[in-house]
This record gives sequence, structure tokens and C-alpha cells, in this order.
Amino acid sequence: MVSKSQIKLITSLQQKKYRDKEELFIAEGPKIISELRASGLKIHSLFSTERYEDLSDRFYEVTANELQKISALKRANTALALFEIPRHKTIPSEGIIVALDAIRDPGNLGTIIRLCDWFGVRQLVCSVDTADCYNPKVVQATMGSIARVEVQYLDLSEYIQNTDLPVFGGVLDGENVYASTLPKNAIVVVGNEGNGISEEIMKQLTHKITIPQFGATQQTESLNVATATAILLSEFNRSTET
Amino acid sequence: MVSKSQIKLITSLQQKKYRDKEELFIAEGPKIISELRASGLKIHSLFSTERYEDLSDRFYEVTANELQKISALKRANTALALFEIPRHKTIPSEGIIVALDAIRDPGNLGTIIRLCDWFGVRQLVCSVDTADCYNPKVVQATMGSIARVEVQYLDLSEYIQNTDLPVFGGVLDGENVYASTLPKNAIVVVGNEGNGISEEIMKQLTHKITIPQFGATQQTESLNVATATAILLSEFNRSTET
Repeated sequence: MVSKSQIKLITSLQQKKYRDKEELFIAEGPKIISELRASGLKIHSLFSTERYEDLSDRFYEVTANELQKISALKRANTALALFEIPRHKTIPSEGIIVALDAIRDPGNLGTIIRLCDWFGVRQLVCSVDTADCYNPKVVQATMGSIARVEVQYLDLSEYIQNTDLPVFGGVLDGENVYASTLPKNAIVVVGNEGNGISEEIMKQLTHKITIPQFGATQQTESLNVATATAILLSEFNRSTET
Repeated sequence: MVSKSQIKLITSLQQKKYRDKEELFIAEGPKIISELRASGLKIHSLFSTERYEDLSDRFYEVTANELQKISALKRANTALALFEIPRHKTIPSEGIIVALDAIRDPGNLGTIIRLCDWFGVRQLVCSVDTADCYNPKVVQATMGSIARVEVQYLDLSEYIQNTDLPVFGGVLDGENVYASTLPKNAIVVVGNEGNGISEEIMKQLTHKITIPQFGATQQTESLNVATATAILLSEFNRSTET
């Protein structure tokens, strides 16, 4: 059974301003819910067609019809949970930190979070105009990785200003990334889908790197930002594996 | 002006069986249309709110309302064109050939075609149960790259059986790709989003390669197939750039 006020709350969490206000976000499907719980995220309430005995007062058994009403998916799964948005920890001063400058597409952001998780990147910093990582589309696209990667929204220029780490940026006319020496501790900036890295941040880069394009007849304008990030992170990490 | 029979034709091309029958596919937007034309693809008809003088009898001026009616996009661009599906050429016996084993998501297929274009891969071979590259969603996602990469659907197992090239496959328990010697001429197989490479093809691989996962606490199940393909192609090509 799901009450009217619960429906109102859940529906409101599709919007960022209510997520910010309530400090809650939505995750759908038992697999992602169990991954988020296993990672230590606090569950606020769970609505499911199947029983979750261990949650007692935070568990609400619902019918498939009731679940479909509160679900943002075309076909609701068997469970929908609200989780508390975790408090920010201090940003580490070592390791690889990925910085996103105005990534707008939720799918790209979700893929990048999943990539960070794969490559052991624990910290993502995002300009305030980057898509919200607690957008339900992003949460679903991360396949649970969101619980293992710390995401912080901040004034990117100010953050870079106050760090001692070298600042690498993926650009179109930089040094060949395959021929570059890449450190173990660095900030790696990737920019907006259409415009790349903003002018302000571009000036703050200490190293500009490029994934070289192959073949003579090429006219491809750019790689998708998530695939470019995949290749850059792969390059930063390959040295530890070879 | 767009006639009833044209509307019927264009609408039917959303479905694979009619694309196969008519040997036509849809592209929307002046930029992608001009890229496809520049690549030598033959235009069948073009519907646009702006004049294309050089097309004469294959050009149909339409209003924004008429264009919206025939468009598959939420907001129609200024032009929609039908192109002839190109005839297959012989598959080359050298270079890198990417083989897709049952990639189902049109977005993933589009991204992989764009990646092939970036990395100078001219030939993509696909199992018959891979998504159709002339699906309008794929065409749009390739950003024009579809005109520069040859895509063929075939019996993948039979094709591999009859080639002399080494056959590399991206798997979860293979050799570390960063430590592998990768040749200039090879087939690179990537598998289905959920199930990976099929059992039949798995037996035909001559080399199994893996993108190693970093960090001790990782639980990520797999990379998205398009990002994994990005990293594999980057590795196959980096040797030529360093």
C-alpha cells in the first residue's frame, strides 16, 4: 500500500529541486537497490511486490499496479526505493580525480560514473551545470556504481585553482595521449558534449592531451564524451598494469 | 509538398522489413545529409523547408508542419532524406575488422560505428541478430560515420571459419590487453550487452583479451560494450602512434 503523500513525494523526486530539498533519490529494481544497500547507502523507504523482511517499518508491500504508478520506468520492476543522498566527504588529494565540465546528458554521466568505478577512480568533481547524478536516469545507467564513486558539484575553476595536482584536459589539439607520460595523481578534465572544455578551465590546464584520429580520409568531428573518457582513463591506468 | 504515398513510404521505413524491401533508409538534419552525400551515398528523395537547388526532381519543399509529420524526431530538423542502402563490397582481408556478436541496442551500435570511423576501421561485420545499422536511431547516433564504415550482416561463425586473420575477442577472463601484442591485421569480436560473446564464436577465438579492472573493492560487472570497444580499438591502434 502506498499513500497519497508517498506518491506525491516519490513523483516530486523526479525533479532536482525536490531531491535537493528532501535529500533523497530514487532507485528502481532489486539488483541496483541491493548494490546500493551493500555499499552502505541509507534506505529511506522501499516499495516492492516482494517482501523485504529486514526493513520492517521502512518496507511497503505494493501491488504491480501500485508500483507502476510510482515508477518512472515504462515497465516497472518489482521494487522502488528511496535512498538518502550521502553527505560529501573531503576530496582526496591523490589518485585520479575525474572533473566534468558541463556534461549535460544523463546517459553520458551514468556511463562515466560506471567507467570511474571500473578504473578505480573514487572521486568525480562536476561543474554546477553538469547533469545531476541523482537524476533517476543517471542512477539507473550507473548500474549501482553510483554508490562506489563519490560525486561532488562545485565551482570547478575555484577547485582547480586550489589544488596542487597536475590538471590534464582532453582536447582536440593537445599532445598525443599515447606518447604522453601520465602520472598516478592527477585531475582529468573532460568537457561538454558540444563545446568541449570551457575557456576558463582551458586556461587552467597544465597538460592538454588528445586521442589521435587515425586514417587519412577521416571527417569524424569528435568521439562521444563517454568513449573519450574511457580511452583517457584506460591510458592513465594502463601503466599500473603493464 | 509531400504526397500520401510518400508519407506511407517514409513511415514504413521505420521498420526493417520495409527498409530491406525498398533498399532505402532515412536520415534527418542537413548536416548528416550533407555528410552522407559527400561520402557518395545516393539520395533517393529529400524533403526540406529550405531549397536544395542541385537536386531538382528529387527535392520536395515542405512546410515545418509537413516535415514534423514525416519525422521520427520529437522536433523535426529542417530536412529529411531517403538514401539508397549501399551494395556490399568485398570484406577486406587486412586491417582491423570489428565483429559484433548480437549487439542489440541501437545507441551502442551507433557509438561503435562512430568509434570505427575515428580509429580508421573501415569494415564492421555483424551477426544477423545485431541491431540494424539503418535503423533511424542508429543513423542519427553515428553522426554521419555510417557513410564511411562498411557494415555487413552475415553468419559470423561461417565468416570467421573462412578467414585467415587472427580472431581476438573481448572477454572477462582473458589475457591483459595492456600486456598483449596486438597485430595490425585482426578481427576484433565484441559480444552482446548481457551475455557477451556467444558460445559458438567463443570457441573460434584465437586470442581472448580482457580490460583489467582496477581497485580492490570493485564490484562493477562489466563495462558498457561501446566503452569496452573504445578501449580495445584504442589499444589496437596505439602501437601505430607511439
